[in-house]
Amino acid sequence: MRPSTASTSLRLRAVGIDTDAENVAYLARGCAACRIDALRAASKVAIRAEGALDDAEPLLAVLNVVDGAGIVGADELGLSQQAFVLLGLPEGTAVRIAPAPRPASLDGVRRKLQGEPLDLAAMRAIARDVVARRYTRSEIAAFLVACGRDDLERDEILALTRAMLETGERLDWREALVVDKHCIGGIPGNRTSMVVVPIVAAHGMLIPKTSSRAITSPSGTADTMEVLAEVELPMERIRRIVERERGCIAWGGTARLAPLDDLLISVERPLALDSPGLMVASILAKKLAAGSTRLLLDIPVGPSAKVRSLADAQRLRKTFEHVGRAMGLHVEVTITDGSQPIGRGVGPVLEARDVMAVLANDPEAPADLRAKSIRLAGRILEFDPDVRGGDGEALARDILESGRAAAKMAAIVDAQGRRPVPLAPGRLVAEITAPRDGRVTGYDHLRLARAARHAGAPASPGAGLDLFVRLGDAVRAGRPLYRLHAETPGELDLARRWCEADPGIAIA
Amino acid sequence: MRPSTASTSLRLRAVGIDTDAENVAYLARGCAACRIDALRAASKVAIRAEGALDDAEPLLAVLNVVDGAGIVGADELGLSQQAFVLLGLPEGTAVRIAPAPRPASLDGVRRKLQGEPLDLAAMRAIARDVVARRYTRSEIAAFLVACGRDDLERDEILALTRAMLETGERLDWREALVVDKHCIGGIPGNRTSMVVVPIVAAHGMLIPKTSSRAITSPSGTADTMEVLAEVELPMERIRRIVERERGCIAWGGTARLAPLDDLLISVERPLALDSPGLMVASILAKKLAAGSTRLLLDIPVGPSAKVRSLADAQRLRKTFEHVGRAMGLHVEVTITDGSQPIGRGVGPVLEARDVMAVLANDPEAPADLRAKSIRLAGRILEFDPDVRGGDGEALARDILESGRAAAKMAAIVDAQGRRPVPLAPGRLVAEITAPRDGRVTGYDHLRLARAARHAGAPASPGAGLDLFVRLGDAVRAGRPLYRLHAETPGELDLARRWCEADPGIAIA
Repeated sequence: MRPSTASTSLRLRAVGIDTDAENVAYLARGCAACRIDALRAASKVAIRAEGALDDAEPLLAVLNVVDGAGIVGADELGLSQQAFVLLGLPEGTAVRIAPAPRPASLDGVRRKLQGEPLDLAAMRAIARDVVARRYTRSEIAAFLVACGRDDLERDEILALTRAMLETGERLDWREALVVDKHCIGGIPGNRTSMVVVPIVAAHGMLIPKTSSRAITSPSGTADTMEVLAEVELPMERIRRIVERERGCIAWGGTARLAPLDDLLISVERPLALDSPGLMVASILAKKLAAGSTRLLLDIPVGPSAKVRSLADAQRLRKTFEHVGRAMGLHVEVTITDGSQPIGRGVGPVLEARDVMAVLANDPEAPADLRAKSIRLAGRILEFDPDVRGGDGEALARDILESGRAAAKMAAIVDAQGRRPVPLAPGRLVAEITAPRDGRVTGYDHLRLARAARHAGAPASPGAGLDLFVRLGDAVRAGRPLYRLHAETPGELDLARRWCEADPGIAIA
Repeated sequence: MRPSTASTSLRLRAVGIDTDAENVAYLARGCAACRIDALRAASKVAIRAEGALDDAEPLLAVLNVVDGAGIVGADELGLSQQAFVLLGLPEGTAVRIAPAPRPASLDGVRRKLQGEPLDLAAMRAIARDVVARRYTRSEIAAFLVACGRDDLERDEILALTRAMLETGERLDWREALVVDKHCIGGIPGNRTSMVVVPIVAAHGMLIPKTSSRAITSPSGTADTMEVLAEVELPMERIRRIVERERGCIAWGGTARLAPLDDLLISVERPLALDSPGLMVASILAKKLAAGSTRLLLDIPVGPSAKVRSLADAQRLRKTFEHVGRAMGLHVEVTITDGSQPIGRGVGPVLEARDVMAVLANDPEAPADLRAKSIRLAGRILEFDPDVRGGDGEALARDILESGRAAAKMAAIVDAQGRRPVPLAPGRLVAEITAPRDGRVTGYDHLRLARAARHAGAPASPGAGLDLFVRLGDAVRAGRPLYRLHAETPGELDLARRWCEADPGIAIA
């Protein structure tokens, strides 16, 4: 094939296009390299430095052919941002290209598509190739669909977890007991981590919490914490903070802990695939990579939660425990009530307000957020061999009521970098009222979350909603159910129209 | 959400990047529109002209965020080539963008993933959205994987065929009998269409053959015909040629006959999915779109062919017949011997040489290519109500031996545009020899095809291989099995090393 001849030498050029999980190579149409057999738009090419050995691992990228001027010249090979970084060669380097070999691990994807379970070797090979960006987004989608269709067997979930862990970095805190807390998500508000971490750290246990930003929700723990302090911290700084304070609440994206998971999620999210097996591997791999040894996992169950029946929750619990045990992570699952939001605020600023009210022992603080946080913190405190079983909750309450949790939170916020000017809730408001008299009988979590997003959360931190009613409350027609906060009239209007069509709270 | 406010108006710009089946939108990082919640690299955006109604169907595109200068400015929205054409607005038009709604037809993909069959309405909705480029390549992959996994039921294949046909143009030849011939492929050489078409057209039947170029093989019928004549002809010219000559052998890609199929193939090919159901829909939709009323379909069966057992071939035959009948296309299937290549040459020039030798009644012409072509042509001639059943083959032989087929081929070549200077086989040659004494017991079609591609076919038309031995022949160690032809030393060397590792011909 022509690529093997010397005639296709090209000069490397960085093209400042962010193509996310997929490497893209840009070639000028009509250039000599473009005439290579088997190269066409959207085919995959293999890229090596001129003079590199044939058996050196090439960079693979999807080919985009360029007609316009200014992006690549006829003797240039352009690479998208991530691909350029991955190749690691300076601009102007002589490179050659060839049709890409099919990643051998795709045979595993194919077998999985035919219904065969994948073993550890196959999962490892897939993980390695995905992380090295040798898969196109379509190939990643094929893998995800293959995994999601009949869901994964337990041993496959274990193999995927291991493969995820092996392809990323892993933190080592050099302590025997490193605790963590995670919720599978789906419940508006529910910002318990920001109460639990200061309680547990105040007790002296190591709880280096790395959190995510919102993907489809109105706020992730990292977004809410960012209302108070910096969360995008270099790993070394996180390490120093945790050494001094025993805890942190930082964004996990800066550490390259589970790059495979990040790549899978970037394809999975738009496809809206729903695979419990992938979720278990994703959560446990991140926790293991973060160096946790004991994890308290919150599975809320409710009619509009991610898990809708106790039977499903029990099944999921067993899978978490099984995989965790095999990987050396003690997982304790708590199945909680997911029938209504936790706390009043939904959106970064409004949630942070609730958290700080709980920590300040404000009598007006949301009782449900306080109670749930104490319960979860108590369970974690009992991971400490010096805390007697059953004493955790009382201890957690004491740490909170004594003000030690609030002091610890202040210290963590200062260490991470306190936001100089506090943020306020969005100044534009609209109240959404009950359409009739009756009692609150249910919440549509997705609808409420979308309402908060329409209002601008999390991009506008002050946007979101403030809930006034709880399950079972009597309401009167025309009285407010919740208040929308936004920062622009357009967003307020969009959210209001959304809520007026259906407020997401059932009244009967 | 911010997109609904007026602040995100952008000026449209054409970015000359060919992104194949996927629309891509380019936005400068940090521009106002980029700050829209839910917009991030690789998410999908909806694009409308400023002032367009909210319920106007937007163009959907995958977002690539641009850091470099020169591609898009801060107030511009760039679109890749196909996306720009599809939007159909001039550069500089004010447009606004918003997070893309999820195409509703993805619910069908999701149901299919869960094992439910898809009905015509669901297939139609998917087809419409794919052709309008509302699917990302990942979403198309999810659909293909869903279809391929347990393969499609007959009614689903029928629904997909209908949906493919409805989303493209359709030729109407205004005659009751329009014949065609198709082979499902996979056999090196086997260039029977170029003998069959002149025989059938010389008899006066209408056979407007549109062929494909090689995708993974060393040559498609269009590539081989291009050795002799132009094949990329505008539809109007094909129509005039067919009116005068009753037949043609042109490339089918210039007519927009089955755009859905083209899009599916562009994603399916790199994934190397293997779904008989998708293949049946793809072939029949193209034939129906080309205006055929009667189709002879060649299914070669052999140990390294696409179909490996007679039982599989029979099953495939029934599916073709069933779907064809329901769509008003009479399909006659012929199951042929696919245990060895047909003809001697593999690669455009070498195959064209074999075809012309058969048409010229050259005694040295490959007997298998001649015999198979006469048999197939005979079956098609019997579609003519004036030809008695069983007489077709004798009639075909007579048309060939009388020189009328050769004369018809000359007329078709002249009408399409004869290549002024004939092409010769690649001037660099290497003989691949038998490693031991014995008899030829089998052919590895894929390996021989790869050998011809390594030698440069089809991009170098003279490249390929010339076979000297047939199944059952006695061979001596060191005597040639075939000769490689190439046009560059690098390609010859690559092909030779490939063949010397394993010649693709079994000797025992």
